[in-house]
Amino acid sequence: MKVNGKEYRTVWLEGSTVKLIDQHKLPHAFEVATCRTHRDTAEAIRTMLVRGAGAIGASAGYAMAQAVLEAPEAAFASFLEQAASLIRATRPTAHDLFYAVEGVLQAIRHAKDPAQARQQAVRRAEQLADENANAGEAIGRVGAALLRDGVRVMTHCNAGWLAFVDWGSALAPIYHAHRQGRALSVYVNETRPRSQGAKLTAWELAQEGVAHTVIADTAAGSLFRHGQVDCVIVGADRIAANGDVVNKIGTYTLAVLAKHHGVPFYVAAPRSTFDVTLDDGSKIPIEERSPEEVTWVSGLTAQGRMERVRITPEGSAAKNPAFDMTPAELVASFITEGGVLPPSRDAIRAFVSAKRLPADSIVHHPA
Amino acid sequence: MKVNGKEYRTVWLEGSTVKLIDQHKLPHAFEVATCRTHRDTAEAIRTMLVRGAGAIGASAGYAMAQAVLEAPEAAFASFLEQAASLIRATRPTAHDLFYAVEGVLQAIRHAKDPAQARQQAVRRAEQLADENANAGEAIGRVGAALLRDGVRVMTHCNAGWLAFVDWGSALAPIYHAHRQGRALSVYVNETRPRSQGAKLTAWELAQEGVAHTVIADTAAGSLFRHGQVDCVIVGADRIAANGDVVNKIGTYTLAVLAKHHGVPFYVAAPRSTFDVTLDDGSKIPIEERSPEEVTWVSGLTAQGRMERVRITPEGSAAKNPAFDMTPAELVASFITEGGVLPPSRDAIRAFVSAKRLPADSIVHHPA
Repeated sequence: MKVNGKEYRTVWLEGSTVKLIDQHKLPHAFEVATCRTHRDTAEAIRTMLVRGAGAIGASAGYAMAQAVLEAPEAAFASFLEQAASLIRATRPTAHDLFYAVEGVLQAIRHAKDPAQARQQAVRRAEQLADENANAGEAIGRVGAALLRDGVRVMTHCNAGWLAFVDWGSALAPIYHAHRQGRALSVYVNETRPRSQGAKLTAWELAQEGVAHTVIADTAAGSLFRHGQVDCVIVGADRIAANGDVVNKIGTYTLAVLAKHHGVPFYVAAPRSTFDVTLDDGSKIPIEERSPEEVTWVSGLTAQGRMERVRITPEGSAAKNPAFDMTPAELVASFITEGGVLPPSRDAIRAFVSAKRLPADSIVHHPA
Repeated sequence: MKVNGKEYRTVWLEGSTVKLIDQHKLPHAFEVATCRTHRDTAEAIRTMLVRGAGAIGASAGYAMAQAVLEAPEAAFASFLEQAASLIRATRPTAHDLFYAVEGVLQAIRHAKDPAQARQQAVRRAEQLADENANAGEAIGRVGAALLRDGVRVMTHCNAGWLAFVDWGSALAPIYHAHRQGRALSVYVNETRPRSQGAKLTAWELAQEGVAHTVIADTAAGSLFRHGQVDCVIVGADRIAANGDVVNKIGTYTLAVLAKHHGVPFYVAAPRSTFDVTLDDGSKIPIEERSPEEVTWVSGLTAQGRMERVRITPEGSAAKNPAFDMTPAELVASFITEGGVLPPSRDAIRAFVSAKRLPADSIVHHPA
């Protein structure tokens, strides 16, 4: 997508270096971070310099490819094993991360020598990134059909192109419909504690010229009650075989509100987010992050300086689960690159096991 | 209640000066602000130096008394009329404010001269503050009976003693049960945009030694889902004749979550918060505050400096309704100084029109 008129992906590989848009500095500064080794890239995932299920996946794939490029021939396998463990340990919840690490490891499984493995690893990591970008574009096309002219969409956290390689999941249908000239507006939940809605989603939508209004998370219920929300679209970090969805903390509350008000609640996600090895959502690990994310807030001072401020009294405990689980019965539909699916085991199984999806045929390269 | 071992009220009168605890600086600094004229006090209400339904009411009563003390005898009535308009215009939602302004005006209605009016105005303003403190204490006693040992209570915003003259509404039962030696713990919703939960409720509970955990507003749903919330207690800014409740933005979301999970949702409020002139909640004006409360956050830097930081991109719009309306059918009970009431017209009418309430007999004076 475009930033100040130039086309970008969220993360990309240049030689053996991973470049990624620094999501700590947005929306106040647009900077590209450089990760020279797989350890740097793993650290960027861990500290959320890059975040969002799809972007984490692509970054993890690139990190794994970097590890293959770095691995000494004398200890090739053990180096990769350690690297894979390091990358897997960065974030526990997003399925895309594990999908990408396995994807690269699978690709080099039958390599006849390290040179071939290096070639295959890079090719597979690039494929994973392309797949993600293509899935986003297809999700956009599929989801746009659900958005009539004048629709008021609520979204949570950031499931836009910054959370993917390109396009995004929840925001892709919005971008698609907007580019088709449909009038729409978006309520952007701030999404405390890290405020990815207020910081990243608002920034993305502003860059694309989509009308949007940021609200405190507390204001969502009131908008539903006053009939100001026509549908909710969120992304997902992992979806179990039965359709249970793990996504950013606060998603479940929106799903309950949507149910209470008869508003459709859509979850947009590519195939890589579905984890059919898990029977239901109760098995998905929920990352507990530092209480400091709740007790401190970062932003830009009036003087243009990045600053962190504490809001709670010293010594008050805080709890910070990063995700929550929304049961399948609260989901109206999944918006995927394979079409709009009902939240049923059969539909999910058929989608995940399909040999070829419409998105596979899309050719998409960043400028 | 005690601050560093010394007994305080939230607001009080010294001669013709109103003193109030500066709620902008809490929890990072404890300071008492001085309002020399009724205009200063009105400004303190408007800028939320003092906030919370009961504390607004008492401050408005004192401001009105200040106006009576200040009024020139040559233009006594017109001065008071202007002062009343100024005070009424500070905050539109809390019923206690209008109740207190009318209360002082009623008290001086039959005064035979300005000197008598001054005496009666001060006496009535003091009575209103005492009534509020007494109601808080009685609400605490009534509500504590609902809290068994080990209970986990969720609360929203600040409806503690800082929101009252003393004791509070939602927190009063918690203080009462805690002082009786019952083990209990409190989940404190941050309550964006102004974060009164994270700032004021956490501070109050810490001062009283009550176990508490601050959460982002987004985390409430997850706690309900995991069965970690036994009941919700919130305060109210205004309650209509049918039991519809207007309270801090985000209250409605909690009421829907509580209903969905079969958890009792209690609203604690004194008689002065009930406005039986309004048939239902749809008639209660909802204050829309500055979008800057959403887009900027204030707190303390690591260097101990108060600072404001912007979190959204420049130019993204924000919407900031300060209150929402919870329909009576989502309320389990009202906790009042007259007992625990069902959310029915009859019960509310009987309570509001009772000549004498148990709380009226409590003698309570600050040390």
